[in-house]
Amino acid sequence: MSDERADSGPDERRDARPTAEAAGAGGGVGGRPPFDIVRVGHVELRVTDLDRARAFYVDLLGFVETERTQEVLYLRGLEERFHHSLALRRAESPGLGHIAFRVRSADDLARAEAFFRRLGRPVRWVEAGAEAGQGRALRAQDPFGFPVEFFCEIDEAERLLQRFDAYRGAFPMRIDHVNLFVPDVQAAHDWYTAELGFRCSEYTETAGAQPRVWASWLFRKPNVHDVALMNGAGPRLHHVGFWVADTASVLRACDILAAAGRVAALERGPGRHGISNAFFLYLRDPDGNRIELYTGDYLTADPDFRPIRWSLDDPRRQTFWGHAAPPSWFEEASPVEDVRDGSFVPLSEPLLQDRPHTVT
Amino acid sequence: MSDERADSGPDERRDARPTAEAAGAGGGVGGRPPFDIVRVGHVELRVTDLDRARAFYVDLLGFVETERTQEVLYLRGLEERFHHSLALRRAESPGLGHIAFRVRSADDLARAEAFFRRLGRPVRWVEAGAEAGQGRALRAQDPFGFPVEFFCEIDEAERLLQRFDAYRGAFPMRIDHVNLFVPDVQAAHDWYTAELGFRCSEYTETAGAQPRVWASWLFRKPNVHDVALMNGAGPRLHHVGFWVADTASVLRACDILAAAGRVAALERGPGRHGISNAFFLYLRDPDGNRIELYTGDYLTADPDFRPIRWSLDDPRRQTFWGHAAPPSWFEEASPVEDVRDGSFVPLSEPLLQDRPHTVT
Amino acid sequence: MSDERADSGPDERRDARPTAEAAGAGGGVGGRPPFDIVRVGHVELRVTDLDRARAFYVDLLGFVETERTQEVLYLRGLEERFHHSLALRRAESPGLGHIAFRVRSADDLARAEAFFRRLGRPVRWVEAGAEAGQGRALRAQDPFGFPVEFFCEIDEAERLLQRFDAYRGAFPMRIDHVNLFVPDVQAAHDWYTAELGFRCSEYTETAGAQPRVWASWLFRKPNVHDVALMNGAGPRLHHVGFWVADTASVLRACDILAAAGRVAALERGPGRHGISNAFFLYLRDPDGNRIELYTGDYLTADPDFRPIRWSLDDPRRQTFWGHAAPPSWFEEASPVEDVRDGSFVPLSEPLLQDRPHTVT
Amino acid sequence: MSDERADSGPDERRDARPTAEAAGAGGGVGGRPPFDIVRVGHVELRVTDLDRARAFYVDLLGFVETERTQEVLYLRGLEERFHHSLALRRAESPGLGHIAFRVRSADDLARAEAFFRRLGRPVRWVEAGAEAGQGRALRAQDPFGFPVEFFCEIDEAERLLQRFDAYRGAFPMRIDHVNLFVPDVQAAHDWYTAELGFRCSEYTETAGAQPRVWASWLFRKPNVHDVALMNGAGPRLHHVGFWVADTASVLRACDILAAAGRVAALERGPGRHGISNAFFLYLRDPDGNRIELYTGDYLTADPDFRPIRWSLDDPRRQTFWGHAAPPSWFEEASPVEDVRDGSFVPLSEPLLQDRPHTVT
Repeated sequence: MSDERADSGPDERRDARPTAEAAGAGGGVGGRPPFDIVRVGHVELRVTDLDRARAFYVDLLGFVETERTQEVLYLRGLEERFHHSLALRRAESPGLGHIAFRVRSADDLARAEAFFRRLGRPVRWVEAGAEAGQGRALRAQDPFGFPVEFFCEIDEAERLLQRFDAYRGAFPMRIDHVNLFVPDVQAAHDWYTAELGFRCSEYTETAGAQPRVWASWLFRKPNVHDVALMNGAGPRLHHVGFWVADTASVLRACDILAAAGRVAALERGPGRHGISNAFFLYLRDPDGNRIELYTGDYLTADPDFRPIRWSLDDPRRQTFWGHAAPPSWFEEASPVEDVRDGSFVPLSEPLLQDRPHTVT
Repeated sequence: MSDERADSGPDERRDARPTAEAAGAGGGVGGRPPFDIVRVGHVELRVTDLDRARAFYVDLLGFVETERTQEVLYLRGLEERFHHSLALRRAESPGLGHIAFRVRSADDLARAEAFFRRLGRPVRWVEAGAEAGQGRALRAQDPFGFPVEFFCEIDEAERLLQRFDAYRGAFPMRIDHVNLFVPDVQAAHDWYTAELGFRCSEYTETAGAQPRVWASWLFRKPNVHDVALMNGAGPRLHHVGFWVADTASVLRACDILAAAGRVAALERGPGRHGISNAFFLYLRDPDGNRIELYTGDYLTADPDFRPIRWSLDDPRRQTFWGHAAPPSWFEEASPVEDVRDGSFVPLSEPLLQDRPHTVT
Repeated sequence: MSDERADSGPDERRDARPTAEAAGAGGGVGGRPPFDIVRVGHVELRVTDLDRARAFYVDLLGFVETERTQEVLYLRGLEERFHHSLALRRAESPGLGHIAFRVRSADDLARAEAFFRRLGRPVRWVEAGAEAGQGRALRAQDPFGFPVEFFCEIDEAERLLQRFDAYRGAFPMRIDHVNLFVPDVQAAHDWYTAELGFRCSEYTETAGAQPRVWASWLFRKPNVHDVALMNGAGPRLHHVGFWVADTASVLRACDILAAAGRVAALERGPGRHGISNAFFLYLRDPDGNRIELYTGDYLTADPDFRPIRWSLDDPRRQTFWGHAAPPSWFEEASPVEDVRDGSFVPLSEPLLQDRPHTVT
Repeated sequence: MSDERADSGPDERRDARPTAEAAGAGGGVGGRPPFDIVRVGHVELRVTDLDRARAFYVDLLGFVETERTQEVLYLRGLEERFHHSLALRRAESPGLGHIAFRVRSADDLARAEAFFRRLGRPVRWVEAGAEAGQGRALRAQDPFGFPVEFFCEIDEAERLLQRFDAYRGAFPMRIDHVNLFVPDVQAAHDWYTAELGFRCSEYTETAGAQPRVWASWLFRKPNVHDVALMNGAGPRLHHVGFWVADTASVLRACDILAAAGRVAALERGPGRHGISNAFFLYLRDPDGNRIELYTGDYLTADPDFRPIRWSLDDPRRQTFWGHAAPPSWFEEASPVEDVRDGSFVPLSEPLLQDRPHTVT
């Protein structure tokens, strides 16, 4: 088998650009992060009709219902051992309630509070049980306006991984990541890597003498990402990604939604991303919140995993097979709540062009 | 499991429209066809560079080379027991040489000659061996201008179905069908069913008080089709369809072509057709000839299989998942040769609108 | 790609042995069969508990219930357009009620009656509606003791092929074949090919100077088989085969049954047969009736498709991957009813050894 | 979807037995391990014929050759970015050369040396380049007799993850784990968790008042394991597990090996393990070394992931679908080298019964 190839896509050989990479990726070399994030834990989305949302997520896609209160539907994937990875909260309009990260210990919660207070960011505690099944948690507004929660304790729920007789729909396995529209990706990338200890697996950079990070894939758990940052008007949630076990699950989701008369939910895909190697499908739930079904990425456990750089105008970056994404995919996203009062955080325009030249 | 459904797509309950259906579908009730076609057997495409074509079909897609002469590359699929199902002939420009149907016996060849001569259509014999591996064959220009060949004898070749160690690329299994642009689909549909004994599995009809067949899927072997007729400037070959065993083979073809820098070959798909239920991918070979990788259709062995009717403007007809086809897919196709001199047959404009209102 | 291979398994080059092959395979050369069988249509199995059977076939495997009477549960696959392909009839013990073949026209029923009366075989008519959804049908005991039914008219049912939101379990698509234990396979092979126009796709032969057919795969619809005959104490039904669309459906059936505590239902497989190339799984229903989930065979439309010969002791014949089948698979099978009174037909011992030397 | 179930298999609710679990799983609570192991990095197997081994691993299974010296063939998987994950060294008999773990930094190598010297275990340095592509590494004999190597620096190699045109065979992606026969699993489990910071994902325990760990799955990278310990005469290497992306890759390996006349290489599977949920296939290379193709396990990133306990006699533990493993799978394994002189380490008999009662 020959390894030669003229036009290899991403430049894996180049020195990693992202300025904070050295510190961020080191993980233990130099300063440790102020508190220890394990992984993205759940996302709370706003939906206007819990029954309609349940029909979509549970009946068609196959998420497992753990608990339902008057206001919130708590769902989990088939592989997950905890109470929920997706909370759908009744609200007057769609949007993002918060993104929750699991931290390693209760001490990390205290350290997170101190960290955000030191930064002068809004912070508040959410008492145990306020979010069903979950212990005391901290909410903060990150410097880029995103409502982030940190929790440590959460009830276990039956893991259904081997309850194959209970599998339905697309067989969603577990939450994988969130993807965020951020006006200044370079700044957010630097902060998440240097301050919170995220590492970068892949990134997109603008051309020219002074390249800037246009998008970045950041991880704590060792696969491609827990958080992706993309250049765009923000803060907005672009999508929540759920991992499925194989490409067949993605295709089955297409067939099921189309058969059920929900073809409008199929926004983009199935296809393959150059970045992350993911086989993807983007769906819009009945309120327009976007989720991704996602499989096919890789492990990033090695401490010297060098970020893979993509040029913004490399056509294989977003769409390995050459498919154009619809304009909605670049333009539409979910507003995010202020952790203090639940109002939506105002948007800022992105610093860079909002999509590649290769997209028309 | 409930069978109810508000918006069932195709109307399977309606009386079959196609006027010649009663006779054509009967197969034995009433008149037998004048000669007995078994199935589509092979297609001869014109290519400008045999080496470049071989790199595409053999090296990337995994077709098996049976024989190569100065002028022609003879290929077959992994399931096939005969010399070739795809012949690539060196020519100055791309296009269709001929479409070959296998007939049941040598007597059928004689009957076919009589039939076409009676119609006053151009006919000529191709001597045994002129096409490698093949016995004496008859070529004729059908009433719609297509160069059709009929053959009975063909050399066997090793069937590689269980030579899994020799599988490469997309694992192409066998030729499945041809798809043709015809200016008057109703007329061609009527002729192929009433005269040649093809049966109709599915068809698309225009709306209004006087519906016309806009497209038709016709078969001799009992799956969805050997020949599809679509409304368009013609006679032109839209594509040749090759059957693969699973959706994974289709996705692998996308990945392989993109990895090899041949993303431009991926014209449309992967996706699912409402019609035929096929999971499809349309590829353009290096000369622009179009082939389809195809899986997921069904058996039509029952004599009372009633054709499934689709409305031209049903959005699920062409694209069950709601994806738009690119304009090229509606506009571009291969010119076809005159069986007498190899010149291209002039085109006529289609009688009906050239694509659905749902396509923009 | 090289075609050379020292130890190619089946001998596809040898002259077809089965003595009746010439007539049987010719199909039109020489005498036509006395009546025209289209394909295997359904099987009626005896079960002792309809609810328990329903839990297995519908709830776990995903068969679709068309109708349930006091005595019979009528099921169909997702691709099927007709009332049922599997009838489960309440009875005091498991077994085979009958095997039904669809014939082309009502005239074929009359011709079938004459044919069996001429042979002096037991024959009786089943009035329209006696079997739900079905027109008048003929039952006969074939010369080898099998209760066979012939029918032409049957109600349509909604085809669920594109109702992907209704898919459950293993996604069973359609009935494919029956497999029978016959004491004298050579005789049954000769009769089914020479008298009823079945063609042979593959067969197993004993070694020695006077080879005998040990097993035979016979078809009317053009894939590998509608009926398989295997050497064994009979007449008994070995299994009914249902076609699924892909290997993933077979694996999913294993996972579902095991998760549901029904691991004992998994008798053999998943694996690949050398014969037919099928990817298979053999299941025992709660009464011990055996079914197969089956995918991966091939088309046999060509009139000169020469039967593939396998030596009985070729280890790749039954089990391409080398797995031994459990003794139960060779020994156990369902008794079959006498069409006159529903009693079981007495068994005869097989003429040949009951399993290959390679099986221990 | 109901969560009820009478006979749920593994007892996930029971308090974790393994005595060293509290310390080992804590990771940061209490003592840190003396040096930081990232993951299993590669395995060196002894083979008697490099060409024959290459035909098996590269030509049939699709491993990628990075480098070949006179004595060693260095292979990697398609996802891997480093020089090798499998080294095949020419030797007079099969066996295990060493198991290599990647450590986080050069300092960890020094700490590892001190640690093993303190224990009085044999230790030696392997100079940079002695193993191709690799920096200075430490070899030691662990307390149970296994030759383990620790390395930090290793050359990068082109990652072929998106070179789909170069995929061959079973598409092996990356090394996943080693599985070891150990006479005293409880002791080895305790040492690897308490001393080296491995965490336990699943374990098998004997019945009775004083349960003992019979087998244990231990990880550093957060999936099910880097190292599995099984009760058996040892020290011996049971197998090296390589991860593939899907079940289809496993089935394709079966087909390819059988087609190539290598059916004897298929020792066990395909099937599903209850433990780890893996879809597995066990192969014997031409020298009898055993590898596993493996997919379908899950993430274990959460710090409070409680080990899943299985009873030794739970039939779903080893074989979720009920298949018996062949005796060879329980009895045969590879001897391991002494790091000092390359001689084989003598075996000790296992403390517990050598296989479950459910296995006959």
